[in-house]
Parts: sequence; C-alpha cells; structure tokens
Amino acid sequence: MARVLDVVDIADPADPRLDDFRDLNSIDRRPDLPTGKGLVIAEGVLVVQRMLASRFDPRALLGTDRRLSELADDLAGRDVPYYRVSAEVMAQVVGFHLNRGVLAAASRVPEPTLADLLGGARTIAVLEGVNDHENLGSIFRNGAGLGVDAVVFGAGCADPLYRRAVRVSMGHALLVPYVRSTRWPDDLGLLREHGFRLLAMTPDPRAQTLSAAMDTVRDEPLAVLVGAEGPGLSETTMRASDIRVRIPMSRGTDSLNVATAAALAFYERCRTAP
Amino acid sequence: MARVLDVVDIADPADPRLDDFRDLNSIDRRPDLPTGKGLVIAEGVLVVQRMLASRFDPRALLGTDRRLSELADDLAGRDVPYYRVSAEVMAQVVGFHLNRGVLAAASRVPEPTLADLLGGARTIAVLEGVNDHENLGSIFRNGAGLGVDAVVFGAGCADPLYRRAVRVSMGHALLVPYVRSTRWPDDLGLLREHGFRLLAMTPDPRAQTLSAAMDTVRDEPLAVLVGAEGPGLSETTMRASDIRVRIPMSRGTDSLNVATAAALAFYERCRTAP
Repeated sequence: MARVLDVVDIADPADPRLDDFRDLNSIDRRPDLPTGKGLVIAEGVLVVQRMLASRFDPRALLGTDRRLSELADDLAGRDVPYYRVSAEVMAQVVGFHLNRGVLAAASRVPEPTLADLLGGARTIAVLEGVNDHENLGSIFRNGAGLGVDAVVFGAGCADPLYRRAVRVSMGHALLVPYVRSTRWPDDLGLLREHGFRLLAMTPDPRAQTLSAAMDTVRDEPLAVLVGAEGPGLSETTMRASDIRVRIPMSRGTDSLNVATAAALAFYERCRTAP
Repeated sequence: MARVLDVVDIADPADPRLDDFRDLNSIDRRPDLPTGKGLVIAEGVLVVQRMLASRFDPRALLGTDRRLSELADDLAGRDVPYYRVSAEVMAQVVGFHLNRGVLAAASRVPEPTLADLLGGARTIAVLEGVNDHENLGSIFRNGAGLGVDAVVFGAGCADPLYRRAVRVSMGHALLVPYVRSTRWPDDLGLLREHGFRLLAMTPDPRAQTLSAAMDTVRDEPLAVLVGAEGPGLSETTMRASDIRVRIPMSRGTDSLNVATAAALAFYERCRTAP
C-alpha cells in the first residue's frame, strides 16, 4: 500500500521534529556554510511545488493549515510529514515572520558530472565569481524562462541552494541542472570538446555586439560566460573564450546588473537560434 | 568671487547641522512618505557624482575624509558644506553602518509637465503599479543604459527618489527625466497625440512577440508600458494600448521580473531602431 502524506499538528515550537526549520536566519544554520546542516529549503507555495517537481525530495514540510489546503493536490500520495502549525508557532520556529506560510526541507543530492550535464544541452550559462545569492537566483529564473538548459559554476560562485537564491529563482534553482566545476578554468576545454562555442560577456567596446555575435553561433551549442558585477570575467577566462561580446549601452552608463546582462544574452540566443 | 566647498569637521553626532542625514531607516524620515522631509539622498561616491551632475543640487554632504578626497574633483568650485566625520559618528547619525562612506542631501525640484517630457523623446517607459523600490531603481538603471529618454509614472508606483530606489538605480533615477501622470490613464491619450505608439507588455500567449512588434514600430516614437509583477497592466491600460507584446518564454516558467522584462524591451528597441 502506498504511504501517504502524514499531517501532524504541533503546538510546541520546541518540538524536535521541527529542527530542520529552526532559526533559519542564524548564520550557523545556513546550508551554504560548512557548519550548516546542508538542507535545501523551499519557501512558499510556488517554490514548494517546484521542489516537489524537482530531484530534491522533501523530507518534511512546515506550514499553516491554509497552505496545506493550497498544496493538497501536489502532496497527494507523497510520503512526507506536514507539520501543521499556527503562524505564531511558525514564526517562533524559523525566527522571523514568514508570510509565505509554508516551508519544505530536502537533503542535497549528488551533482551530475560535467560531461553528463553537457549531453543534450544546446545553451548553457557559465558563471564565474557570481557570489551574490540574489544575482544567482535571478540568473536561474531568467535562464529557466529564456531557454537555458544547464548552468556551470566556475570559481568564486555562491551556493545556488541557499534559501534566498532558491526563493529569488522562484524555485528554478531546484529545476535547472547545474554542476560546480572541479577543474576551473580547465573545464572550459571540456566544454569546447563537447562542441560548445564560448561566448564571454564584457563591457569592452572592442567586443562584438550581442546580436552580431549570436548570429554567428546560431547553429552551434553555446556557452554564455558571465562574471560578477564589477570585476567581470577573469583575464584567464576571457582568453579561454571564443568570442567577446558586449551589450550596446548608452553613453555615461555602467554595465548592467549581471543577471540582467545574462537575461539579454539568453533572450538574444532564443531569438537567433529558436 | 565664487564660493567654494566648505569642509566642516564635526565630532558630535547630535550636531543639528547633521539633521538632514539622521535616522535614515526610521519610517517617519522616509522621504517618500507624507510625513518625511522630502529630501533626496544619494549614497556612495558614484551616486553622489551622479547627483552632482543632475538637476538635484546637494545642500549638504556627510562623509569620511577618504570619500572627500575621492570626490575632490567633482566638488571643486561647488558651494556646499561637506560635514567631515569619522565612520563611527556617521553610523550614529544615520542609524546604521553605511560602508559607502558618503551621503548627499538635496531638495526636490518641480517635475516637468508631461508635454515637456515628451518633446524630443523617442523611447519612453510607462510604469503602472510598480510599487517596489528595487524594481523601480532597476528600471531606471536599465533604461539609462538601454536608450530610454524618459519615464512616465501611472497609478500605483513607488517614489523613484526614495533612497533605496536611487541606490539601486546607480543614481540614474536622478538623471533620467520622469513625470507622474496626474490624469491616469487619460494621459495615455496625450502620449498618442504626441505620436507615440503604445506597446503593452503582457504574458498573454496571443500577443505579438517582442522582436516582431518592435520591428513594426522602428520608425515611430515608442512608449513601453509595463505593470507590476503579478497583476501586470490593468485591463483599462491594456485596452488603451496599440500593441500587446510578449517575451517568448520556456514552458513551465512564469513571467520575468518586471525590471528584467523592461530591459529586454528596451534592448530590443535599441536593436531594431538604433
């Protein structure tokens, strides 16, 4: 017989069954830190739904009765406890008022190999030094909406499974496959061996414009390389790329936010190579 | 004789000359609220430089000695006091540690009329219900970089001069001309009288794609209409528009962040009507 959703009412915020969700803002509970518990946390109905559709299998949910009813269809037949609490108990457990009203916690899963990730992908994003969780989350959201098949992390990137990155990504950090490069920047050579053209985003005025460059690679697998706002891509990575590309900008302005620049590249890729 | 920058060393955080910069996070000092003082605050060297280049004339600056030297060229010959303080005094005055190290305060200035704003503009952004300061700031930053001449605010928008909006805009909220519509949505008619085509962004799958639509308006003045994430543009505004436009999105994804969607529209406008 299939096991089913187990709704458990809890009134005591100190109940140890709620430990997965305790003090989420506390620095030593952050899953991206070595001292953290390593759990992946989804917040809110939409992101929890995406976690349920992802490779991350929730081991527990914590939420109000209202959110339980909103998730009823998604949770039907799932073998997972739903700890049903009041909004007050929830705030005491997580350490702040969480108006999204529901959380799910899942263990991490092994990452694919880079070679596995590249098989079948046509457009990937490659990030270097993107150490801001909001930018990282936005890149996943933009990539999911604009045809990116997978993401590769080079050196210096933040954890895409940190709670804020997952939230800003609207849950797409749980759905878009990614891998952390273990041999950076040498792995760029592996991308090239798999047939990918390496397109490096830069504010350099001598670089090709985005639309001109995308037109030249429309029939080939493409890796869009972006670096952090400010420093941009490292010189080593720039040299390892095939094409340097810029977004034409108005005079007197800086580069765009890294997630916005990436969105423009992904959009232009979709437009030129549908 | 030209009056010059007046550097004043202050050691007492209670000094009344610092009142423009006091308790910036306090809700009743927020300049966008009716109870606020209405001052426009620029934070950090880059944004202060943009304020100095804008129509907002600073009446005082507060900062450390290090930031004073970084701003020396920009401030040369300006008739404005620079209150030079330690980082500790600065934190006590503003109510939190501000690692950008310098602030400038300016009075508001009268907004132009809508007719003045439209004269000479070729591409404008029209916002409705964009009530998030970060999104608003990002739209100004993206617009400044991607060829937007002016911004019109319809109903329900936040204050573009609020500190966080100015900061996220990288100071472009002080430079890109804007006006708040006083007759909304009737003012859309005035845009049309000035020859503008009204292009409404929507997730509606029946709408034209962004690239197809932009191609049809390349020779005409254009207003890009965007609504808040979630509700989008009101039905009244949608009906008042000329063309409904969508960004082609991957299946199973939501709409993009409003500032990102706007950036794609501005980019596509630059590409098709350079």
